[in-house]
Amino acid sequence: MENNFTEIAKAAKQASLEIADLAAKIKNEALNNIANAFEAHKQEIFEANKVDLELAQTLVDEGKITKSTFNRLKLDENKMRDMIQGVRDIAALENPVGKTLLARELDEGLTLYKVSCPIGVLGIIFEARPDVISQISALAIKSSNAVILKGGKESKNTNTKIMEIINSALEKTGGFPKNVVQQVFSHDDVAQMLKCDEYINLIIPRGGNNLVKYIKENTNIPVLGHASGICHIFVDESADIDVASSVVVDAKTQYPSACNAVETLLIHKNFPKADELLASLQLSEIKLVSDPDRWDMEYGDKILSYKFVESVDEAIDHINSYGSGHTDSIITTNAHNAEKFMNKVDSAGVYFNASTRFADGFRYGFGAEVGISTNKTHARGPVGLEGLTIYKYKLIGSGHIVDDYVKGKKHFHHKDLI
Amino acid sequence: MENNFTEIAKAAKQASLEIADLAAKIKNEALNNIANAFEAHKQEIFEANKVDLELAQTLVDEGKITKSTFNRLKLDENKMRDMIQGVRDIAALENPVGKTLLARELDEGLTLYKVSCPIGVLGIIFEARPDVISQISALAIKSSNAVILKGGKESKNTNTKIMEIINSALEKTGGFPKNVVQQVFSHDDVAQMLKCDEYINLIIPRGGNNLVKYIKENTNIPVLGHASGICHIFVDESADIDVASSVVVDAKTQYPSACNAVETLLIHKNFPKADELLASLQLSEIKLVSDPDRWDMEYGDKILSYKFVESVDEAIDHINSYGSGHTDSIITTNAHNAEKFMNKVDSAGVYFNASTRFADGFRYGFGAEVGISTNKTHARGPVGLEGLTIYKYKLIGSGHIVDDYVKGKKHFHHKDLI
Repeated sequence: MENNFTEIAKAAKQASLEIADLAAKIKNEALNNIANAFEAHKQEIFEANKVDLELAQTLVDEGKITKSTFNRLKLDENKMRDMIQGVRDIAALENPVGKTLLARELDEGLTLYKVSCPIGVLGIIFEARPDVISQISALAIKSSNAVILKGGKESKNTNTKIMEIINSALEKTGGFPKNVVQQVFSHDDVAQMLKCDEYINLIIPRGGNNLVKYIKENTNIPVLGHASGICHIFVDESADIDVASSVVVDAKTQYPSACNAVETLLIHKNFPKADELLASLQLSEIKLVSDPDRWDMEYGDKILSYKFVESVDEAIDHINSYGSGHTDSIITTNAHNAEKFMNKVDSAGVYFNASTRFADGFRYGFGAEVGISTNKTHARGPVGLEGLTIYKYKLIGSGHIVDDYVKGKKHFHHKDLI
Repeated sequence: MENNFTEIAKAAKQASLEIADLAAKIKNEALNNIANAFEAHKQEIFEANKVDLELAQTLVDEGKITKSTFNRLKLDENKMRDMIQGVRDIAALENPVGKTLLARELDEGLTLYKVSCPIGVLGIIFEARPDVISQISALAIKSSNAVILKGGKESKNTNTKIMEIINSALEKTGGFPKNVVQQVFSHDDVAQMLKCDEYINLIIPRGGNNLVKYIKENTNIPVLGHASGICHIFVDESADIDVASSVVVDAKTQYPSACNAVETLLIHKNFPKADELLASLQLSEIKLVSDPDRWDMEYGDKILSYKFVESVDEAIDHINSYGSGHTDSIITTNAHNAEKFMNKVDSAGVYFNASTRFADGFRYGFGAEVGISTNKTHARGPVGLEGLTIYKYKLIGSGHIVDDYVKGKKHFHHKDLI
């Protein structure tokens, strides 16, 4: 007998085939209906959230969850406004599917098109933030993917209410297929999702390092995301002290718990203003630590590891050894060293005289961010809607057969049309 | 204590960092050196191959390997010429890394570049064909990836000789890093490769369905390839009989064991010339089978499943249920049905009045083929050199910090430069 999760996954697969070529107009109408429904029913969402918060407060008091988890769980007017605006913004973006990426005449009357299309079924596993449902559902709809969401149990009431509103808005959207957005609840569902490579094409974890690591180690479905963000700044011999100081302070203190915050500062041993730099960081309330056991620490706080290095090469080696391939920056006035650093550091983002905190989909101008990937395949760095698409090849002929080419009766001429 | 495979994988990782930004000139020189060395030492390769063939002949006699495995193992003058030319052709291709894919001014003096770069370390697991070493090594070098190859034990002597020649040619290439191309031999090495997600970024299996299935099920490293090729042709109500007959004959008989050969023929129940079509297929020595237990059969032979369907929708559903997402074609004169078929069939290749046999990197004009992928992420369909690359983001500023944008002192203007 089939269990419940398999049924949900099959329904998602079917939905993914139906939404694959749905008109952009219907998708955008669906998104605007969702935004309007959030607007109309926001009191209900706040009430559901209140139930979760009361329960969570008990857990905070008992020391079972942290205050910061509690804060992420909380939906206030500001977060609600951002959530609603986020859906409208996604509706306003260009349709990421159906784009012609290549058009090539292989021979007279035989034309190849590479066209962007959805991936299929996304599995989303996220922790306390209930606004993730709204964001990821909107991104999935816009990119014509079906999605199965598994949220944290702390936000179950809020998630259920948001999902109810989304699905009721989708039902009211003429021509919109069923089961595009589904939710599961149990820990057992997660285990099944990770095994369900028959129906699920991509897993996106949204949460802490441990969650992401667990998922990456326990599935052979592709996973889009990053486990850790151990970002570096290398201050070269020739760096401008003001640039070095202001970039490091920004990268460490502007939002210390972000994955793109700097964790380790590497300083060229001949940088003449090293003392001044370290003093300025301490003035900005950054705690400095120089401990070789901490080269792979992600503090998430105003703490910074630092190390003196012999050369740009040692800095590059250090980053490639201890970094997480997220974002690393060089501060220098030497363009040759900057070029070397950017070419040799094997990270999603390699920066020159800029703060690591710029690693973000909105800042890159992608409109909406699916997440930040440290993968080496499919999508790397801040991932926009494009990361939720793949492509298919359409070949249009008039009875063309391969035998004619093998026998030399016909020849490919491979003429690009765009 | 570290075992041998981990040492090899670490060396590959180090090599991948060194080859990442190697000048195209050196890479091409290395490739031409390899081609010249094959030319100069081909007798040695034939001799090594002879040893493998003698051993293999015994296995054929004992019924332990098939005659077709024996044939794939055999390197003759023709295959050798193709192998050498293949390396020269790859040298002549455009450098796939270092391409600027996006250049965007985020704000005054703050510019983002998305630049293609290598993936890192490739793990290749292949069966009897020793020419795979040459092809994959050349593709890896051209795309600046390091590679670890594990061939079948039947071709061990040939593989070892080819590898010796490759590495000796690489050693003679000034500035070319060590350990870019390495080989492992044992079954245990395969098990370790599949677990080695710390150092290996992409696995490419080249072999039969069972090998690929085994690999996909036993690793959480991304795998590029396809387990099976269950391709379909749907002959619509309005199809031209001559087009239908010649395309199906080509797709089934031109090379029956290819993954892009057709396995199931779907015929619209109202197609008036169905009998004529089936008769013409039988005339071409195609054995026709209509058995619902065989809708997922990959015959690899001149055998074809067939089924009558009620509509284009039933054909689409059948393909999405039983197909392998490889390549499927509609034969019709109805453009509306063709469009529907190409949009709704969830396969890497969706064709209109053309043989499924066109699904091939060379025919698409990609120059060289890494393999054909039925994945839904990274690369789909025939994969060229581009499939061995990913990208990194370079951000160049002059001391830019995020705080200025968060506080509204500065604003992004996101101006595309290319």
